[in-house]
Amino acid sequence: MKEMKTIAVVGGDLRQMYLAQAFVQSGYTVYAVGFDEGVEPPEGIIMSDRADIALSLCDAAIFPLPMTLDGKTVNMPLSKHTLDLDDCAKQLPPASLVFGGRIDENTQAIFERTGHPIEDYFRREEFAVHNAQATAEGAVEIILRELPTTIYQRRILVTGFGRISKALVRILTAMGAKVTVAARKYGDLAWAEIWGCQGVHLSNLAECIGEQDVVVNTVPAVVLPRQMLSRLSSSCLLVDLASKPGGVDFETAKQLGLKTIWALSLPGKAAPVTAGEIVKNTIVNMIAERRERDGKN
Amino acid sequence: MKEMKTIAVVGGDLRQMYLAQAFVQSGYTVYAVGFDEGVEPPEGIIMSDRADIALSLCDAAIFPLPMTLDGKTVNMPLSKHTLDLDDCAKQLPPASLVFGGRIDENTQAIFERTGHPIEDYFRREEFAVHNAQATAEGAVEIILRELPTTIYQRRILVTGFGRISKALVRILTAMGAKVTVAARKYGDLAWAEIWGCQGVHLSNLAECIGEQDVVVNTVPAVVLPRQMLSRLSSSCLLVDLASKPGGVDFETAKQLGLKTIWALSLPGKAAPVTAGEIVKNTIVNMIAERRERDGKN
Amino acid sequence: MKEMKTIAVVGGDLRQMYLAQAFVQSGYTVYAVGFDEGVEPPEGIIMSDRADIALSLCDAAIFPLPMTLDGKTVNMPLSKHTLDLDDCAKQLPPASLVFGGRIDENTQAIFERTGHPIEDYFRREEFAVHNAQATAEGAVEIILRELPTTIYQRRILVTGFGRISKALVRILTAMGAKVTVAARKYGDLAWAEIWGCQGVHLSNLAECIGEQDVVVNTVPAVVLPRQMLSRLSSSCLLVDLASKPGGVDFETAKQLGLKTIWALSLPGKAAPVTAGEIVKNTIVNMIAERRERDGKN
Amino acid sequence: MKEMKTIAVVGGDLRQMYLAQAFVQSGYTVYAVGFDEGVEPPEGIIMSDRADIALSLCDAAIFPLPMTLDGKTVNMPLSKHTLDLDDCAKQLPPASLVFGGRIDENTQAIFERTGHPIEDYFRREEFAVHNAQATAEGAVEIILRELPTTIYQRRILVTGFGRISKALVRILTAMGAKVTVAARKYGDLAWAEIWGCQGVHLSNLAECIGEQDVVVNTVPAVVLPRQMLSRLSSSCLLVDLASKPGGVDFETAKQLGLKTIWALSLPGKAAPVTAGEIVKNTIVNMIAERRERDGKN
Repeated sequence: MKEMKTIAVVGGDLRQMYLAQAFVQSGYTVYAVGFDEGVEPPEGIIMSDRADIALSLCDAAIFPLPMTLDGKTVNMPLSKHTLDLDDCAKQLPPASLVFGGRIDENTQAIFERTGHPIEDYFRREEFAVHNAQATAEGAVEIILRELPTTIYQRRILVTGFGRISKALVRILTAMGAKVTVAARKYGDLAWAEIWGCQGVHLSNLAECIGEQDVVVNTVPAVVLPRQMLSRLSSSCLLVDLASKPGGVDFETAKQLGLKTIWALSLPGKAAPVTAGEIVKNTIVNMIAERRERDGKN
Repeated sequence: MKEMKTIAVVGGDLRQMYLAQAFVQSGYTVYAVGFDEGVEPPEGIIMSDRADIALSLCDAAIFPLPMTLDGKTVNMPLSKHTLDLDDCAKQLPPASLVFGGRIDENTQAIFERTGHPIEDYFRREEFAVHNAQATAEGAVEIILRELPTTIYQRRILVTGFGRISKALVRILTAMGAKVTVAARKYGDLAWAEIWGCQGVHLSNLAECIGEQDVVVNTVPAVVLPRQMLSRLSSSCLLVDLASKPGGVDFETAKQLGLKTIWALSLPGKAAPVTAGEIVKNTIVNMIAERRERDGKN
Repeated sequence: MKEMKTIAVVGGDLRQMYLAQAFVQSGYTVYAVGFDEGVEPPEGIIMSDRADIALSLCDAAIFPLPMTLDGKTVNMPLSKHTLDLDDCAKQLPPASLVFGGRIDENTQAIFERTGHPIEDYFRREEFAVHNAQATAEGAVEIILRELPTTIYQRRILVTGFGRISKALVRILTAMGAKVTVAARKYGDLAWAEIWGCQGVHLSNLAECIGEQDVVVNTVPAVVLPRQMLSRLSSSCLLVDLASKPGGVDFETAKQLGLKTIWALSLPGKAAPVTAGEIVKNTIVNMIAERRERDGKN
Repeated sequence: MKEMKTIAVVGGDLRQMYLAQAFVQSGYTVYAVGFDEGVEPPEGIIMSDRADIALSLCDAAIFPLPMTLDGKTVNMPLSKHTLDLDDCAKQLPPASLVFGGRIDENTQAIFERTGHPIEDYFRREEFAVHNAQATAEGAVEIILRELPTTIYQRRILVTGFGRISKALVRILTAMGAKVTVAARKYGDLAWAEIWGCQGVHLSNLAECIGEQDVVVNTVPAVVLPRQMLSRLSSSCLLVDLASKPGGVDFETAKQLGLKTIWALSLPGKAAPVTAGEIVKNTIVNMIAERRERDGKN
């Protein structure tokens, strides 16, 4: 495989701009396309109006997360132009690699037709893990901002024990919170206990909910319906980190006077520079794996 | 010693109100004096306009931090009235205990004249330690809010290794920051290393400053003069937690374009409820120690 | 489902005896069968010579790990008698549950023929997780015993990042070791870094091996062949926790004068009481899940 | 001040030999005196029978801990010879520095008479702190070896909260023990709580003792008399780390059948190489401070 030297970063929001910057800092030549609306470019990035030229020069093209909203054009919120995925595929040199986030089948097909290897960084485990850490920090910021108390010595319930929870409880326990993890798998409860939390099976949640100062949900299913919420003190803070539909019965929470914050896409909001770096590091890994695979063949 | 049942909370800001609330939650009868200007009292506190009556009924009177600003009257920012320390002393029953913060000699003398035991909670070690933890959380909130990155993997320099630093580095290292502690005592550097930081003697600070993303100062002396500040990247965040005069050359920091936040009195601002609880718990310890002393005599 | 009250613990080593004790402490009536050779039974266990009677009285029968060595009789190293699995199945009451470790197909079939629900605690995730924690402590004990230095500030390489590694690095980093994790999955490396280690892809191991004071292997495949071992200092300690064939080229290690310890079955050796409790707690979870399933039907 | 290049290590046990080795590894020329009885010297150390020559060549002489047992001769357990402190003082070049451990007044006077700066590394805070960490690891090794259970989830009482306790509870809490710290100062209890333990005032110890699996004492005074010990379960392990007279009533413990281990001088026993390095690093700091002081004059 040819060495990667020139990268085209195409479309997306500020996170993509920070991704471009991260590649510049690692010594790559970087063209950025689709940032013509009020973006102050970081030093060293070559801002380009001509997608066709930028794409024709690059060893790899990086598209945003999600790559497209309409299935036809690049997701390009910071540009007044549109750019067809079809045109991108045609303008890329034959050996160019293509990376995108949440690639749909149609987009996949477009680039396969022109013979370009296309890979999805959103499906990579290290992307998810590092994003979970960034999400956890964002959640801690929210809790610190909203609580009139310290996190230290507070009783915090975390529902679910996926990546975000794992990252979150490490921080909360180090800050001295008394953390209870409610999850469905006994293996998860075992880890929660080893990591300094109390573990409670979700089927026994009713018995242990009530005295918490904060509840953080990470399960994308309504694990906190009315009969759970009504047991909480009115001063309890609810933070829902789960993607739609969320895990909290928001209507009920409002009626009960519970302060509820539904925080989505925290990495991009709370730490956009890191969010860009995470994508960059993930792509570097994907290139390394491809090189290793190619080396073996 | 008589059992403590009735408390008068006299003067101070919202922190005193939360202190009153904490005593109510522990089963005490609590009179609050000096909160006539726009304070919504928490449930269970007896708000009183008549200091003389409240004081005459109490087993202990708790004054704010600082207890007085002019040496004569109670520090009472949430009241339109004034209250002489002299009058307070006269109205207290003979056996009443008196607690205050940063008590000056004159005030001390006033209450000693009337035979009232007076003690300063501000000089208690557990008060200082718990306040340090609350300050550390406040500092973490500031860093999370200001950084466009995660704390994870950031290089953070902490100058000084008193209580606040000790509390702070526990949180920062758990979040995955690469923390360097600069201090003057080799014993402090030993602890810093045991707790997962790099230790640097303050006399070698010049050699290791420069690549940090955040610098947190806790030393109340200018340990970060121009020759140090000028080595930092312009994107470095400075957080000064030291009381006046602070440890940063603010004028130079401004010239160099360094974002600088001088954060004082964080517990009262970031966690007022906890700030009140800390005073309350300290006073409970002071009463227990007094009882133990009395029991031995 | 009937409530569990009476348990028969059949065969196995001391770990089973501690399991029996753990059930006694939780209020169960416990018969122990197959411990006639020199075992001092803990208080409260009913030692029985008559397997047929004990089995006929029990709500659940618990067999050892592994359940059988020959596919026909119970694994019963502390008894001079033998006990056929077939006979056990026939003597159990119809509703009795059966639990065993590493159950083979044939054994499974024997109990299914008599209509007894049979489940394997060895395949449970919480069993594996808690055993990993016990294994990690055993490994720490070995390292502390063998090293003429503290673990603090030592460079330790851990190969693999399964459950045991995860449990181990939490302890080692808290003790102040500089831990490097070598693993193949980028997601694992991400977690290793979040938890305070350096992460190295196994394909780059050659570049980072050499300066370590300790190497702990957890991968059951030879990840440490001659070209890796020969880079290590002769004072480096090797601890192999992987089941056969292990991950170290033991012959080469010996030639190179490297001290190598191949430690298998650590929970049973280093913490037999805990090993028994882990099986007991796992079975309690399995009974609870069965009850929940039955409750829904 | 002249640069330090040549060191004489005089007397002491194996720890001094490792100290000599540590100086060799840092590039010093090292003479070792007083190791004629069966010591296999590490590579690079110049073993000398002639104390007079070795001393006359050195920039600094390092004596053991304690420096002398009889007040006249060097503490030299690994030699068949004796060496007078007086003679040492006379043979040293005028500018040589002298370092020793637990220097008594008489010894101090001997070297001051010949004009040699003499300093005690045993009184240095960083020496005490690093030794505390090594002691804590030694205590963990004892607990792991003696307990038939994991440390994880065990209830451990630690009496006292000096340096050793601080180092110990960091490890024990990371291993998942439920640690209670009993101390007399409320400030210490505050730190114990911040660091994840339960804090109990020593005057309330009777109320919380009883259910522990392990008790570790660090207070050199009998804080665990009969009325405390008799509340413990007979399976409780007692580890006393306090110097004489220890903090456990050993006679009573024996009568009660409590397994008790009185572990003294753990760093030298459990981690002799590290014990030597700690002395070496402390002396390097002392030389640096002396240089800084001299530079200012």
